[in-house]
Amino acid sequence: MTTPLRLGIAGLGTVGVGVLRMVRDNSDILRARTGRDVTISAVSARSRDKDRGVDLSGFVWEDDPVALARRDDVDVFVELMGGSDGPAKAATEAALAAGKAVVTANKAMLALHGQALAELAEENDAPLRFEAAVAGGIPCVKALTEGLAGNRITRVSGVMNGTCNYILTRMESAGLPYADVFEEARALGYLEADPSLDVGGIDAGHKLAILSAIAFGTRVDFDGVQLQGIERVTIDDIRRARDMGYRIKLLGEARRTPGGIEQSMRPTLVPEDSPLGQLEGGTNMVVIEGDAVGQVVLRGAGAGEGPTASAVMGDVCDIARGMALPPFGQPAATLQAPVRANATTECAHYLRLSLRDEPGALAQVATALGRSGISIDRMRQYDHPGTDAPVLIVTHPCAPGDLARALDDVAATGVVAGDPVALQIQTP
Amino acid sequence: MTTPLRLGIAGLGTVGVGVLRMVRDNSDILRARTGRDVTISAVSARSRDKDRGVDLSGFVWEDDPVALARRDDVDVFVELMGGSDGPAKAATEAALAAGKAVVTANKAMLALHGQALAELAEENDAPLRFEAAVAGGIPCVKALTEGLAGNRITRVSGVMNGTCNYILTRMESAGLPYADVFEEARALGYLEADPSLDVGGIDAGHKLAILSAIAFGTRVDFDGVQLQGIERVTIDDIRRARDMGYRIKLLGEARRTPGGIEQSMRPTLVPEDSPLGQLEGGTNMVVIEGDAVGQVVLRGAGAGEGPTASAVMGDVCDIARGMALPPFGQPAATLQAPVRANATTECAHYLRLSLRDEPGALAQVATALGRSGISIDRMRQYDHPGTDAPVLIVTHPCAPGDLARALDDVAATGVVAGDPVALQIQTP
Repeated sequence: MTTPLRLGIAGLGTVGVGVLRMVRDNSDILRARTGRDVTISAVSARSRDKDRGVDLSGFVWEDDPVALARRDDVDVFVELMGGSDGPAKAATEAALAAGKAVVTANKAMLALHGQALAELAEENDAPLRFEAAVAGGIPCVKALTEGLAGNRITRVSGVMNGTCNYILTRMESAGLPYADVFEEARALGYLEADPSLDVGGIDAGHKLAILSAIAFGTRVDFDGVQLQGIERVTIDDIRRARDMGYRIKLLGEARRTPGGIEQSMRPTLVPEDSPLGQLEGGTNMVVIEGDAVGQVVLRGAGAGEGPTASAVMGDVCDIARGMALPPFGQPAATLQAPVRANATTECAHYLRLSLRDEPGALAQVATALGRSGISIDRMRQYDHPGTDAPVLIVTHPCAPGDLARALDDVAATGVVAGDPVALQIQTP
Repeated sequence: MTTPLRLGIAGLGTVGVGVLRMVRDNSDILRARTGRDVTISAVSARSRDKDRGVDLSGFVWEDDPVALARRDDVDVFVELMGGSDGPAKAATEAALAAGKAVVTANKAMLALHGQALAELAEENDAPLRFEAAVAGGIPCVKALTEGLAGNRITRVSGVMNGTCNYILTRMESAGLPYADVFEEARALGYLEADPSLDVGGIDAGHKLAILSAIAFGTRVDFDGVQLQGIERVTIDDIRRARDMGYRIKLLGEARRTPGGIEQSMRPTLVPEDSPLGQLEGGTNMVVIEGDAVGQVVLRGAGAGEGPTASAVMGDVCDIARGMALPPFGQPAATLQAPVRANATTECAHYLRLSLRDEPGALAQVATALGRSGISIDRMRQYDHPGTDAPVLIVTHPCAPGDLARALDDVAATGVVAGDPVALQIQTP
């Protein structure tokens, strides 16, 4: 038996408490599998007095996470505070600079500062691990970085925000409008303090950017993710999609194209009988495609105390076992500057627009679409109690750029009220 | 750039050729991700002259795999010959004894000799890796051994033999009897030389025994797997199961119970709208359940050149990166002798029996079942052209032991022709 591996845990929210419980309840498992005792030396959080349902009396309390990160009796700094900057980043940098391993669940920090942190980690020969930052309990970072490392990865996609998936599936099952389910989710504590991180697709975009960097050997490029939130998806959109055999999911996709890397996170119509279409509630799914392996699908809980703590402890076990590799799977200095591709992959689109009740309005829309080469698969105008008529259009596959131009053309006709909603339909 | 990692490959069938192609076509990827060149020094196979569609002229040819395993210019011995004993085992032992890493796809060898090989590997500080032995391209050994290492695993289950799944789904989709689809599969080259390895559930049982050892920290115990093949599943069974909302899959399950470890591999009715129920053709699925993570589902191609080579190369990358851990995730000496539990988990059963055309026959069967405490959920007697009438019975949940006694009782009545078919219905 070698020396114990000593953790310092900063952040005692849901996940932090989950880690405390796993270290306490599974100490026999951890010892058997890593050959070492895994212990906790010190903890840190915003409030010392809050009742978290776990006994903290055996741990040193540090008010300052940076001081925690630098403690001599901490081998692994476990960063569970969140926030891309501020104390989380300062403490992570302090730990790495001191040559200590860091395990974090912080997708925002990695999506925005992943390159600099990876360089710092490698300079100091300090592991930096973040399985818990992507898709909760699903060991997808490990699958991509290690298990599938021999593959040329062609695409990584999936549903990576459980809250959005909860909202979309709940709207459908309860027949409730977006605003009502949003408030429900807020009351249940499912939403981030800034809800736009969830419903705006930002949180999921952070995760996608991390996976994309590993998959394609490029620097993390969150700004390169085309983001569209779920805020404008209506219960009617969901029902109409269902009528056509689709369900709407906040789908992330990163793919290598001849022009560069395409990254997007947006509400997308997926076939209802596909694995993605059947995903309910807070479950996440990550789909990895490689030249040799074909398609591998990973499914599991995307958040929550146990699943996220499981991912943290997986990283801790690797560190205890002395298994080390660069944070993004190859040396940070060798990660390429990402070339952003204009989205050129053609796909069908679902369009919803509000047509002014004027003679010839529908014809003007159809003509405008035709001028940009957008061909229409189906078009349907619905009953309308008000003055504007909802119109639903499904296009044949077209390039996103052509569609954007077409929608500008449509707007210029003056017969459409407000902004159209355009959702991609998944290319199989 | 450190020194190259030099492979010696024994066995140039489908998977061996896939490895040759990956090393050739993805050399840039391998170098970027491992920091080393991955090269092939020497190869070995039964026939030197066979045209495999790849150029072997750059590699030394060895007729004897043991000599290959011992070569000074081989760092990693890649064993793709198959067979639990004979040359595969001899060469693996030779490589490990010489302190060389071994990567193998050989589930039979590991299921029968895993403990001894792991001990030999650890004595010689030589990695022994076998991701390719279980579920083709799905990185499930890594997920269980590393990613979910912090969990107390409660159950591992799944569909792990693509050939059986192909036969069962093809019988259903084409409406063909077992014997016809079996011959089709043989003609397509899907079956092992000894087909009972596939259809008898032995191959899948080998895989389950390996996962079970890792999951529960026990010595591999293939003899403890309760095996039932798919040979007696008829097209009528498949249709009747479907009528009740189920599909029949060769399902493996290893679970920890208070009495010990239960391992089984047998045709099982699973809900048709569950992930397992929707698995088509050669696809495999592994479901891992842990105390913290809940349920993680992994899906991908279970066999074939690319997927299996992908798994081999994942292990090769780990070795190139210097990442090492004991073969079964903890030192072989600490693996417990497995305690086999009598299957006590109650579940409903599907029974099919052939009733002699005698007055009161059905009543005698029902009475015999009742005497053993088996209560009947549904019973149906079908039209019969011959003298014996097919009867289908679905039981309420009961212990397998009680059912076995009940079936003995039923046999003793003398009103049943042949052996009844009894299939478990999956406990959710």
